[in-house]
Amino acid sequence: MKKISDSTVRRMSQYYRSLSRLIEQSVQTISSEKMAQIENITSAQVRKDLSFFGSFGKRGLGYNTVELKTKIGEILGLDHQWNVAIVGAGNIGRALTDYTEFNRQGFFIGTVFESDTSKIGTQCNGVDIVDIEKAKINYKKKAIDIIIIAVPAKHAQAVCEQFVNLGVRAFLNFAPISLQVPDNVVVKNENMSVEIESLSFFLRNG
Amino acid sequence: MKKISDSTVRRMSQYYRSLSRLIEQSVQTISSEKMAQIENITSAQVRKDLSFFGSFGKRGLGYNTVELKTKIGEILGLDHQWNVAIVGAGNIGRALTDYTEFNRQGFFIGTVFESDTSKIGTQCNGVDIVDIEKAKINYKKKAIDIIIIAVPAKHAQAVCEQFVNLGVRAFLNFAPISLQVPDNVVVKNENMSVEIESLSFFLRNG
Repeated sequence: MKKISDSTVRRMSQYYRSLSRLIEQSVQTISSEKMAQIENITSAQVRKDLSFFGSFGKRGLGYNTVELKTKIGEILGLDHQWNVAIVGAGNIGRALTDYTEFNRQGFFIGTVFESDTSKIGTQCNGVDIVDIEKAKINYKKKAIDIIIIAVPAKHAQAVCEQFVNLGVRAFLNFAPISLQVPDNVVVKNENMSVEIESLSFFLRNG
Repeated sequence: MKKISDSTVRRMSQYYRSLSRLIEQSVQTISSEKMAQIENITSAQVRKDLSFFGSFGKRGLGYNTVELKTKIGEILGLDHQWNVAIVGAGNIGRALTDYTEFNRQGFFIGTVFESDTSKIGTQCNGVDIVDIEKAKINYKKKAIDIIIIAVPAKHAQAVCEQFVNLGVRAFLNFAPISLQVPDNVVVKNENMSVEIESLSFFLRNG
């Protein structure tokens, strides 16, 4: 497979979500033009994105929504259960244990790691809060695929390194800091400022 | 000003953050090539994005980091204080009152609206939790610019309409649902699944 850009993968996620909605509305086929309109991009971009993964649509007929959703889901790895652990049982960590979208898409949150002894041993939305010192045992037992970092910025790099050393290759980082990782590890940053800045841009210029 | 695409505005936010980091590291100038490398895009894209807003860089010298950051901040409206209210004092709403990045960028969270009487009248990280029935009075008093929707999906459209009717034009939506709004109103969706799906793509294909 050719090297796929981050923005293509991001658009794939958006196509996946739009297709889910279309299927709920009993829409059976969709043209690249209509899809482009939904996503507010060009139809050439839609066709280019999908061409990375082979040919789906039939000329003049458009794409079958169910087939396309299934195929994109496979590409994104959403046909698989991924074992996820959160580090940090603060507000963000707790909110994430309650974010049912993750579960629905195959991201199963099995553990929240904490260092605060008053929280260790309790649960949050049914998820066990476990001593971060027990990360190694828990990592092996739960076969953790993805770590979500929800600790203060000053602790984020150390937490990340701890799990890189255990063998974790994928991190979702909520701390407002850029993490340094080896080449074979991927970090995605969840920066909640980006969307709100688009709103201030609109209010300023719209 | 020409019509600017959402993805350009999003990249502007990223440039702004990268420039902040570079300035902290005492970097005074940066070339479009180096900026492109940081953002993992082409230098032609960087130059094209910045050209929308006029000419900043000097050929062969690159961009002055402080000047460029200031200019992008103005474009994004970050030189202004925006009054923000959150609707919903659940986990996500509470986490956001504690998200200091918003405040640092000029997004001032003045109120959390709630319908749960056990929460109304209390505070969350110093922010008053106010009866949603008092939205109209509060909207006028606080001159709310942006509403953050952090209620369950089934209530999100009604909440949005309530504030559209009061005159709010900018919404940040955390509910996993697509909101219908008039043409002169903008909704940005904070979908936490997009980044985690990039991770599963990487684990599947990387």
